Amino acid sequence: MLTDFGTLDDFAGVCHGVVAARAPHASVIHLTHGVTPQAVLQGALVLRNSLPYMPDTAVYMAVVDPGVGTDRRALAVEAADGHAFVGPDNGLLAPAIAACGGARRVVVLDNAAHQLAPVSRTFHGRDVFAPAAAHLAAGGDIGALGSVAPTDSLAGLAVPEPQIEQGSIEAEVWNVDRYGNIALLLDKVGLTTAFGENLELELVVGKDRFYALVSETFAHVRPGEILLYEDPYGWMSVAINQGDAAETFRMRRGKRMVILPRRSA
Amino acid sequence: MLTDFGTLDDFAGVCHGVVAARAPHASVIHLTHGVTPQAVLQGALVLRNSLPYMPDTAVYMAVVDPGVGTDRRALAVEAADGHAFVGPDNGLLAPAIAACGGARRVVVLDNAAHQLAPVSRTFHGRDVFAPAAAHLAAGGDIGALGSVAPTDSLAGLAVPEPQIEQGSIEAEVWNVDRYGNIALLLDKVGLTTAFGENLELELVVGKDRFYALVSETFAHVRPGEILLYEDPYGWMSVAINQGDAAETFRMRRGKRMVILPRRSA
Amino acid sequence: MLTDFGTLDDFAGVCHGVVAARAPHASVIHLTHGVTPQAVLQGALVLRNSLPYMPDTAVYMAVVDPGVGTDRRALAVEAADGHAFVGPDNGLLAPAIAACGGARRVVVLDNAAHQLAPVSRTFHGRDVFAPAAAHLAAGGDIGALGSVAPTDSLAGLAVPEPQIEQGSIEAEVWNVDRYGNIALLLDKVGLTTAFGENLELELVVGKDRFYALVSETFAHVRPGEILLYEDPYGWMSVAINQGDAAETFRMRRGKRMVILPRRSA
Repeated sequence: MLTDFGTLDDFAGVCHGVVAARAPHASVIHLTHGVTPQAVLQGALVLRNSLPYMPDTAVYMAVVDPGVGTDRRALAVEAADGHAFVGPDNGLLAPAIAACGGARRVVVLDNAAHQLAPVSRTFHGRDVFAPAAAHLAAGGDIGALGSVAPTDSLAGLAVPEPQIEQGSIEAEVWNVDRYGNIALLLDKVGLTTAFGENLELELVVGKDRFYALVSETFAHVRPGEILLYEDPYGWMSVAINQGDAAETFRMRRGKRMVILPRRSA
Repeated sequence: MLTDFGTLDDFAGVCHGVVAARAPHASVIHLTHGVTPQAVLQGALVLRNSLPYMPDTAVYMAVVDPGVGTDRRALAVEAADGHAFVGPDNGLLAPAIAACGGARRVVVLDNAAHQLAPVSRTFHGRDVFAPAAAHLAAGGDIGALGSVAPTDSLAGLAVPEPQIEQGSIEAEVWNVDRYGNIALLLDKVGLTTAFGENLELELVVGKDRFYALVSETFAHVRPGEILLYEDPYGWMSVAINQGDAAETFRMRRGKRMVILPRRSA
Repeated sequence: MLTDFGTLDDFAGVCHGVVAARAPHASVIHLTHGVTPQAVLQGALVLRNSLPYMPDTAVYMAVVDPGVGTDRRALAVEAADGHAFVGPDNGLLAPAIAACGGARRVVVLDNAAHQLAPVSRTFHGRDVFAPAAAHLAAGGDIGALGSVAPTDSLAGLAVPEPQIEQGSIEAEVWNVDRYGNIALLLDKVGLTTAFGENLELELVVGKDRFYALVSETFAHVRPGEILLYEDPYGWMSVAINQGDAAETFRMRRGKRMVILPRRSA
């Protein structure tokens, strides 16, 4: 399960209960419920990031669903490599399914026999997605969940690309983690394209520029120094050793950062 | 498990450990540990809300326990429909047990053989309730846990009723969720009693009045608009589409809201 | 699992996935992920506190790891009493292992066959510790995880001792819990050594002194009164009945508190 439900309320626990009631032998992994409310892009990338680390038999239930109660479709998807996903058709599943080779079967969750009754208008996690995930986790056939839809009918997801030029990058912040580390929509190849082997860069934040070192790990820079490092999922990220980069730079998801070479002193 | 332990500390994890040590085949569902500290009413209603969604064989361990260390009783209760509950006798279990048809057997947890030794004065979740829940989850008899008590000896819970008149409602806030949605001690029947099919209302907050639409779901109102909707557990709730109602209205548990018809312009 | 990963991100969930992929029959107890980032002492004491409450067959994976990516060792340790621990060699495991009678076997996690490939520089929880914990939880031999190291090579942990004199104690705050209760590096024996059976004390906070009662439980003092009590793990702790002591006294981990006898009026 990956959701934006948080841990303050019973939302995640109730979904767990629905799964346990219908698939008692399934084991639930709470990947995270800490996605920012309604942040579909963030949820989509966290979901895709996690794939290589989950059991092969996992059924992924992902719910970040600002359109709940509208006519956005609720889907179960079997990917080309056999992985199964359940969630709203708003792009949340798109990067993960693409990473699994694309969709092989797409089913709209419109079979009421696999939903709770009545279906609430605002909590499809509990009433639609959890029962569907339980059905799949218990070995049920995806086709039983509803109507087949074209595999090319999946909603896509707009992922803002970085602007990479010789000696300059502008990239969007897609995540800020618990430690205040800032993950950019930028990979190592992009960084190298712009700056080659230059490890001394500058971050432009408003009218200020900050010296930053490209480094493999925190401990290679001094406390308080800024580093650009490849995070464990392959995203270039900005951190402050023993500090909180997001707070220091007042950065949050959706803002953009500019990276330039260090000016000569 | 439903508690006010939070996730910052090891309290919930240690209780999970105590259960796992004594009932290794039991599966633990963390319904929530996010109940506001010592908020018995909130915990009691979240617990009752969750019942229809949990496995039939569930044992409910609920701990919101401001009276820990006093002479308030620690109980295990078998409800008329067979569900089992463990928790303090302070009203926390009352709505859930009522929803299960009342108590069939009430046992005071005074058998030291089913407690950890020594029992701490401030953490009965770990030392008293978790071992009792594990005993029941492992199929043990409730009678082994301690002394039988009268089924009518359970502490009740004062649930503040809404004041409903023709064209006016005053109701208490019993919950604010992660999204800032405000749940009132008011159901759809109460709303209809006061306002009929009128979907255009006003919320009175201090000296201000705010236009609110009765709506089935968020997406039926515009971003920033206020809606009154039936939440997925049947409580009338106040939300702002893509906003945070609790923050906007400075509302929190225990405060009261007044609802009136929209004044003609 | 005990970590400082928090619940905002997928870090704990991904580690759970790695364990589930490699030890599908293992049950994961999330002891807590709420350790303050990089607070090794806090994590070490929470881990040790929890030992008596966990299943005998538990494998402990503990990750509070400010030195990740440096040459600090990653270890698996079998204690004299058979318990198994996995974590960084920075003192985090030391109090727990000491409580288990010391180390019987120490293995450096340098066998790549039991690591994910490639090993990231900043997330050894996922790439090194979780696979090792899964191996042990699945019944694998600790020796397979890497090179044997001397049992006396474990990093120790500096635990600041209280200064205890007749009629005076100065002790460090090692934990502040969800309720604002302040746990001191001080036990009941230390308190009695300084103050005997005197139950009326004063806390010195900056230039102010506060009256505090030694009490077994919250309910024995009035709302708003300060109490010194033995917490459920044996630490002397400062609380305010129905209040938040840490906020009131602006106390946090690492600060020191002075306790004196009550001055006669």
